[in-house]
Amino acid sequence: MFNIDFQPIGRRGRCNAEESLLECARRLSVDIVSICGGVGTCSRCKVQIVSGEVSEPSAEERVGLSPREIEQNFRLACRTFPKSDLKVFVPPESLTAPQRTQVEGLEVAVKPEPPVQVLEVSAMPPSIDTPEADDSNLWTALARRYGIASGSIDFKVQQSLSPVLRDAGWNVRVALRDREIVALGPSWARWIGLAVDIGTTKIAVYLVDMETGKTLAAQGLMNPQISYGEDVVSRISAAGKSTANAVKLQTLLVEALNQASAQLCASIGAVPTDIVEAVVVGNTAIHHLFLGLPVRQLGVSPYVPAVRSAVDVKARDLGLRIAPGGYIHLLPNIAGYVGADHVAMLLATKLAEYRGTVLAMDIGTNTEICLNHNGTMNSVSCASGPAFEGAHIKYGMRAAPGSIEHARISGGKLAIQTIGNEPPVGICGSGLLDIVAQMRLHGILDPSGRMNPHPLVRERQGTKEFVVFERPGRDDITISQKDVRELQLAKAAIRLGIRALVEANGLTEESIDQVIIAGAFGTFIDIESAIAIGMLPSLPLPRFQQVGNAAGAGARMALVSRSQRRLACDLAARVGYIELAAIPDFGRKYAEASIMASSLG
Amino acid sequence: MFNIDFQPIGRRGRCNAEESLLECARRLSVDIVSICGGVGTCSRCKVQIVSGEVSEPSAEERVGLSPREIEQNFRLACRTFPKSDLKVFVPPESLTAPQRTQVEGLEVAVKPEPPVQVLEVSAMPPSIDTPEADDSNLWTALARRYGIASGSIDFKVQQSLSPVLRDAGWNVRVALRDREIVALGPSWARWIGLAVDIGTTKIAVYLVDMETGKTLAAQGLMNPQISYGEDVVSRISAAGKSTANAVKLQTLLVEALNQASAQLCASIGAVPTDIVEAVVVGNTAIHHLFLGLPVRQLGVSPYVPAVRSAVDVKARDLGLRIAPGGYIHLLPNIAGYVGADHVAMLLATKLAEYRGTVLAMDIGTNTEICLNHNGTMNSVSCASGPAFEGAHIKYGMRAAPGSIEHARISGGKLAIQTIGNEPPVGICGSGLLDIVAQMRLHGILDPSGRMNPHPLVRERQGTKEFVVFERPGRDDITISQKDVRELQLAKAAIRLGIRALVEANGLTEESIDQVIIAGAFGTFIDIESAIAIGMLPSLPLPRFQQVGNAAGAGARMALVSRSQRRLACDLAARVGYIELAAIPDFGRKYAEASIMASSLG
Repeated sequence: MFNIDFQPIGRRGRCNAEESLLECARRLSVDIVSICGGVGTCSRCKVQIVSGEVSEPSAEERVGLSPREIEQNFRLACRTFPKSDLKVFVPPESLTAPQRTQVEGLEVAVKPEPPVQVLEVSAMPPSIDTPEADDSNLWTALARRYGIASGSIDFKVQQSLSPVLRDAGWNVRVALRDREIVALGPSWARWIGLAVDIGTTKIAVYLVDMETGKTLAAQGLMNPQISYGEDVVSRISAAGKSTANAVKLQTLLVEALNQASAQLCASIGAVPTDIVEAVVVGNTAIHHLFLGLPVRQLGVSPYVPAVRSAVDVKARDLGLRIAPGGYIHLLPNIAGYVGADHVAMLLATKLAEYRGTVLAMDIGTNTEICLNHNGTMNSVSCASGPAFEGAHIKYGMRAAPGSIEHARISGGKLAIQTIGNEPPVGICGSGLLDIVAQMRLHGILDPSGRMNPHPLVRERQGTKEFVVFERPGRDDITISQKDVRELQLAKAAIRLGIRALVEANGLTEESIDQVIIAGAFGTFIDIESAIAIGMLPSLPLPRFQQVGNAAGAGARMALVSRSQRRLACDLAARVGYIELAAIPDFGRKYAEASIMASSLG
Repeated sequence: MFNIDFQPIGRRGRCNAEESLLECARRLSVDIVSICGGVGTCSRCKVQIVSGEVSEPSAEERVGLSPREIEQNFRLACRTFPKSDLKVFVPPESLTAPQRTQVEGLEVAVKPEPPVQVLEVSAMPPSIDTPEADDSNLWTALARRYGIASGSIDFKVQQSLSPVLRDAGWNVRVALRDREIVALGPSWARWIGLAVDIGTTKIAVYLVDMETGKTLAAQGLMNPQISYGEDVVSRISAAGKSTANAVKLQTLLVEALNQASAQLCASIGAVPTDIVEAVVVGNTAIHHLFLGLPVRQLGVSPYVPAVRSAVDVKARDLGLRIAPGGYIHLLPNIAGYVGADHVAMLLATKLAEYRGTVLAMDIGTNTEICLNHNGTMNSVSCASGPAFEGAHIKYGMRAAPGSIEHARISGGKLAIQTIGNEPPVGICGSGLLDIVAQMRLHGILDPSGRMNPHPLVRERQGTKEFVVFERPGRDDITISQKDVRELQLAKAAIRLGIRALVEANGLTEESIDQVIIAGAFGTFIDIESAIAIGMLPSLPLPRFQQVGNAAGAGARMALVSRSQRRLACDLAARVGYIELAAIPDFGRKYAEASIMASSLG
């Protein structure tokens, strides 16, 4: 029996020499993707042996892995058996969606340099001979211990100053932001930060230790604004129609955040008033709706934001329940359709540090793409729509247990992998991409996206559909011709954005050295499938890199680092915005050419 | 017929050589005090001839005015007749109370250096080629015209940014405070400031032009917190008992200010949202109750303020309705019982600039006194009680039309002067002081304050009372033995404060070079009367100076001048506080000796 340590998820257990790493992982609830069921044919269960001895690479692995991967100790978990204690790295793409989200919460690659400092001080109780006011008293103590000059004390902190000092016996913890005391508590007070990435469809919420930068807890939830429309355009229009709508759209978000942060806090034994600072990112429309900023001008040409600069606002002004004196920091926007979440993604991917021609994109309901070509950075925004979130797809669903997230056609049959290995209940974005790509690769779809006759294609009510999973006694899970069209529109929007960026730099897609794909969805997708359907340019696979929810990571970086906030402002000022609508004839020329004709691959 | 110009009230009219200046003034509604009815005996109608020729000083004037006064062209208005066009200065003490208050609103002796700058800019409308965000656009315009670097925009201003810019055709007025835009409006927007002096009993509210420093309108109102007790101690106790009380005490004030400022704004054709900045002063307890700060520690030894430093708080955080992004600035406090109003008084009197030994005091329900002895400044606070406001006095009332504000005994009869020359309805503070002083001077009171037999003294229900005004068919207006005791307590508190200050500096009262008396009440009193009853030390009259509502003037100075705000902070740090309770045996030694024994004169 050997000790196996699965990283970065941090799960350990024992395994004998007869058990594959995949079997061992499953026993320890490490959810490694496996479409073929562990027979070595799907090549999705890649893991990297960090230390220790394992069995020699099998024939299946020599087919399914590149020589470079084998050289780097990448192995298929289903074909690999331990020969000693092991440390095994499971890359995000080999984990199923829920566990991947969990992992994403683990670390933020930035040195903490917190905008809110936590300081402990002991003040001297006043006496009739030294009747010093409580505020002066506190500043005197801060000056004595840390050499900090007097600043201001948030109005709400002032309101509790005297009882807190006395109840704590004059030994307190101070949360100092620039020169303002934003929270005050007894010496055992625990202060944490809140990072939020508000997507058009989903929201990711993180609690972070302000001193270490460590993520303490994370949670995903739906954006409740979805009741006002799946895309931001409908929400802008709703908010523009009446103040009541605008207020409701804001309140929905704030209430959802209050609820999520209360739950997250409870999970780590904290309370929301322990949160001394929050960072919120989102696209420009979401940013504006969250702040209650006017959005009408966002909806009409030239689509300008009301506010581009970074914003610091007291959480109480928005009704977000954190420490009464705490601020919400919002990263800057770049343009009407390239927002603070894009800036956060740029922070997390460190795109500005790359040399050569590098593309970074966050795929979602809106897809924002940035190209760094030898230091010149430009971004575009494409309305890719909610198909990747499962919307407008007959059996579409979000990445949740039971959703089909990967698929392969082999021997005329479709093999599927569901999240959590549950019985299939629907198809999530990455599954849709895989299935359509497999259909295209196996000739079931022609280049224009039309379905050809095939044993798995049938006709129902005059429409062709591809059978994904038969469920006796219930509707079969299928993909219709219309579903394929939805995906074509979504992928074409992204591809057009990429082309506009490279062409604006006088380049072709082939000159792209690297493609960084961010976003929960982007992390789950099979790059080969995405290339197969023409969503991504056909570049060698090693040029692609999937980095997970970068906007959420960027938000966490900005939460704990003043340098990252400055960098965000620099980036927002430096990154150019290319308005697709402003390119002469762009709409007609490309939309017609790309969407209608050579749509798939 | 000559042209007569009464200053500083700014009233002009014509007068013939047969009409006294007093008659002329009355015709023009300049309310000059006259107790004797214009027969030259009370010497209260002093005016100063600034330019022009008048009749020679009469015999009465040679008696009623000092040679120095005559030399300075002071005359009794009732005995003086014009011989040419005249400019006549009416000193505040010669005006009746309501008109004096009006005059006090006229000017603030400080060069405007407004904390909120008003700037006009024209921004460039965005286009598809230059889709600049509205905030960047505004900062670009400010940089172009004024060379101002980008700062922040208040969250509430951001919320109206886009429609305001568009509705105003991109020509706007910006209110900039430090580096924050606190208000934005069309180019015709009018921006004003609000200065408030919250007394324990009365509130003075002023609207001020932020650019010129000119007072636009002023109003006095009652402090509605009075329902929780006439003195601050009862209010501290009420607020300390329950949060509901504390909230109510704050809300009462804020609502009163909202109402007063709305009325004042209406009187000059403005609206409360035109107010871009407010300055509020009050004693420490009032300051704390207004801000919702804890007060329990103010009520127990060592009586420390929660907050001593100057405070800047968004008006919206307190519910004060001004421009949505506007701040309220509160001057610093000095100690638990020497507050921001005292600092404001120090600003307005410019006490720190005096050389020698100078006393400045603001007489009210609490009387704060500061002694500047060759640059060393110390303050005390004395609980003088509400007797000066007419409270606890049987026929006491506030200075209002019909209240007896001055009195003289002559030929065994009491002559009275009421505000507005209306039929007498009660006695205000200065009237009480005059009557008691006259009683003492004419032997009706013995040194201990006991009433002696006298034609005007009678006995009712076993108590002695002095008949001030007989009203056939109604109760006569009288002063009882108990009323005299109330006044004794009030005056003794003030005198004790003065003694403590001079003794702390190793001085005696005789070494005081000047006494500056501030506060509405202090301005109305007759100094000779105050000396007669022992409230003020017996110093030569020219050493006294009555300056009106200095706290309100200081608030207005701080409203329009950043230097004055800095000076206020310097003063708050520099002025020492002498806690009477901390002086060994002070209470017993002085209270017994002064109050009980040699009480009157």
